[in-house]
Amino acid sequence: MIRVPTLFLDPIRCKKNIAKMAAKARRNNVAFRPHVKTHQSLAVARWLKEEGVSKITVSSLKMAAYFAQEWNDITVAFPTNILEIETINSLASKIQLNLCVENVEVLEFLEKQLKSPVGIFLKMDIGYNRTGIAVDRFSVIDQLLSQMEQTPLLQFKGFLGHAGHSYQCRSKEAIEAVHQASKEKILLLKDRYQKQYPELILSYGDTPSCSVSDDFAGIDEIRPGNFTFYDLTQNIIGSNELNEIAVAMACPVVAKHPDRNEIVVYGGGVHLSKDRVEDPEDGVIFGRVAEQKGASWGACIPKMHLKSLSQEHGIVSVPKEKMQDYAIGDLLWVLPVHSCMAADLMKEFHTTDGAILSAM
Amino acid sequence: MIRVPTLFLDPIRCKKNIAKMAAKARRNNVAFRPHVKTHQSLAVARWLKEEGVSKITVSSLKMAAYFAQEWNDITVAFPTNILEIETINSLASKIQLNLCVENVEVLEFLEKQLKSPVGIFLKMDIGYNRTGIAVDRFSVIDQLLSQMEQTPLLQFKGFLGHAGHSYQCRSKEAIEAVHQASKEKILLLKDRYQKQYPELILSYGDTPSCSVSDDFAGIDEIRPGNFTFYDLTQNIIGSNELNEIAVAMACPVVAKHPDRNEIVVYGGGVHLSKDRVEDPEDGVIFGRVAEQKGASWGACIPKMHLKSLSQEHGIVSVPKEKMQDYAIGDLLWVLPVHSCMAADLMKEFHTTDGAILSAM
Repeated sequence: MIRVPTLFLDPIRCKKNIAKMAAKARRNNVAFRPHVKTHQSLAVARWLKEEGVSKITVSSLKMAAYFAQEWNDITVAFPTNILEIETINSLASKIQLNLCVENVEVLEFLEKQLKSPVGIFLKMDIGYNRTGIAVDRFSVIDQLLSQMEQTPLLQFKGFLGHAGHSYQCRSKEAIEAVHQASKEKILLLKDRYQKQYPELILSYGDTPSCSVSDDFAGIDEIRPGNFTFYDLTQNIIGSNELNEIAVAMACPVVAKHPDRNEIVVYGGGVHLSKDRVEDPEDGVIFGRVAEQKGASWGACIPKMHLKSLSQEHGIVSVPKEKMQDYAIGDLLWVLPVHSCMAADLMKEFHTTDGAILSAM
Repeated sequence: MIRVPTLFLDPIRCKKNIAKMAAKARRNNVAFRPHVKTHQSLAVARWLKEEGVSKITVSSLKMAAYFAQEWNDITVAFPTNILEIETINSLASKIQLNLCVENVEVLEFLEKQLKSPVGIFLKMDIGYNRTGIAVDRFSVIDQLLSQMEQTPLLQFKGFLGHAGHSYQCRSKEAIEAVHQASKEKILLLKDRYQKQYPELILSYGDTPSCSVSDDFAGIDEIRPGNFTFYDLTQNIIGSNELNEIAVAMACPVVAKHPDRNEIVVYGGGVHLSKDRVEDPEDGVIFGRVAEQKGASWGACIPKMHLKSLSQEHGIVSVPKEKMQDYAIGDLLWVLPVHSCMAADLMKEFHTTDGAILSAM
């Protein structure tokens, strides 16, 4: 029996999301290296293997070490943290480890300290302006490339970009536009460097672009992650339908306030995270409530959402006529604003068919 | 050596914060029942014992069970989750457990299911509108009181309020005004019910009010929590000086972008939480960078703050002239926006004098 906030995972929805993205990758003839930071779970990652996936993306060396238990080709899509050189050397001696580099100092450090070969992606800024080298800074790129030429342990793999600014979009058309502009930027690099490096890989792919577009011409590899579960943010961006969201938090009702049409649930920032999204109709929300359907959840209930979160409390706005449908001690299904953050906090998934899958 | 994001705790600052609040409670002749949700650590809570504290507040039954290892008088300042009746009965058989109630259904449930006596606080809404009974709903209050009269295991303790709307304040004057208005509301209940219940306790106290005010006339007990560590949010509210913040996240520098005066650190939403605060000068921030000072941190560096957070990345805005002071592989001291959430994520504290204190 569920007595406290518990993160549920619907394997049917999740496997469908994975199968759909794997099919898109095959159809577009691009390699599929999904990001596993969303679930951080070896158990969930086995569902990727069932779809033929053989390589993954992670966002920390700690995550790489965890997944190296079952995966032997891992890209760390995060600027290399030189302080973790021991972990890098330990992993590189066992698996195909690919790192991201965007600064000369990092390459110089690796040159001196590496003991096994690693693949190097140059992290490029394709419009997001978070990390990466601007795609037209050829002097820096050339310098990094020639440095790698001189160091056999540094194996240049290609260019890696993340169009994270697609998260600002609010329609499929807007996503497609960001995708095309970002893709154009990274393709410039192939034009310029493919002769010299015929094997170079263009690695690309945020969840919105990979969910919406079907044009990956010139791209070699995609790395979406959030699509595994999706969430309310991705839905508002335009990436997925609400019924594709594969995780929901079961939250006990602990108080009712009919005078203000609110329910208080046990389920706060330490369960769902304080991530928020601005819904075009309902303003800033922290989650939405879905109806019960069999052993899982069904459609979202219109106008029933988490309007605020404290450390352990969630305050649910409830349509007046729905107040009587819920009693203290009931469980509400709350769809998360950001599934990656909720999964990181909860560390395990209860599947709707009765299993418990652990995460990192 | 620190290689990954690590939460540091300065025992000198922390013990000073505790001593100051304990002295204020003594001076005002109110009982001091600090909230321990900020640190969730038995080790840190021992510093409260050194100041004579003998009873605490928690925000979940799970937290109560953890602290019951060393504390025998605990109030759960959260609407009672009836689904956890087994934990309630187990704790109530061992310690003085106090619960919060605001709905008749909960009291009826406890009446039937309780096996040992528990203290009951009626949770009152003193202006925050998150949880609690409005202070003028006497019919509900009277009903709950008469229900308790009939059940010896339900021991009415008093009224508990939390002026959480003080978090909207941005000056000491504004905090004092919210405090006075909230205190007035809860005092009404003493006027009305003290004859009938001469022992009744008015339990009160958010960190802003308890930090700023020195007028607790009529209040019997205060329960601030965040003051133990403080943070940037409390500083912006007006509760504390920046140099009273007792925790900071050491974050490795992983990339530098002099073209846009930004540094990328390893330290993101999974370390600091996605909690944000709007700074009057710098807009929405997710942390501030402090300078190195001995084995700890010193003053905040003006205009050097976290402008955005991803799952593992923090993007630091850096004053142009400061860019050259930081190299890849350095550690930055990041003061958190919300120390409770960062502590919950990190689960342990490295003290600036070399110890490691674990949390729940």
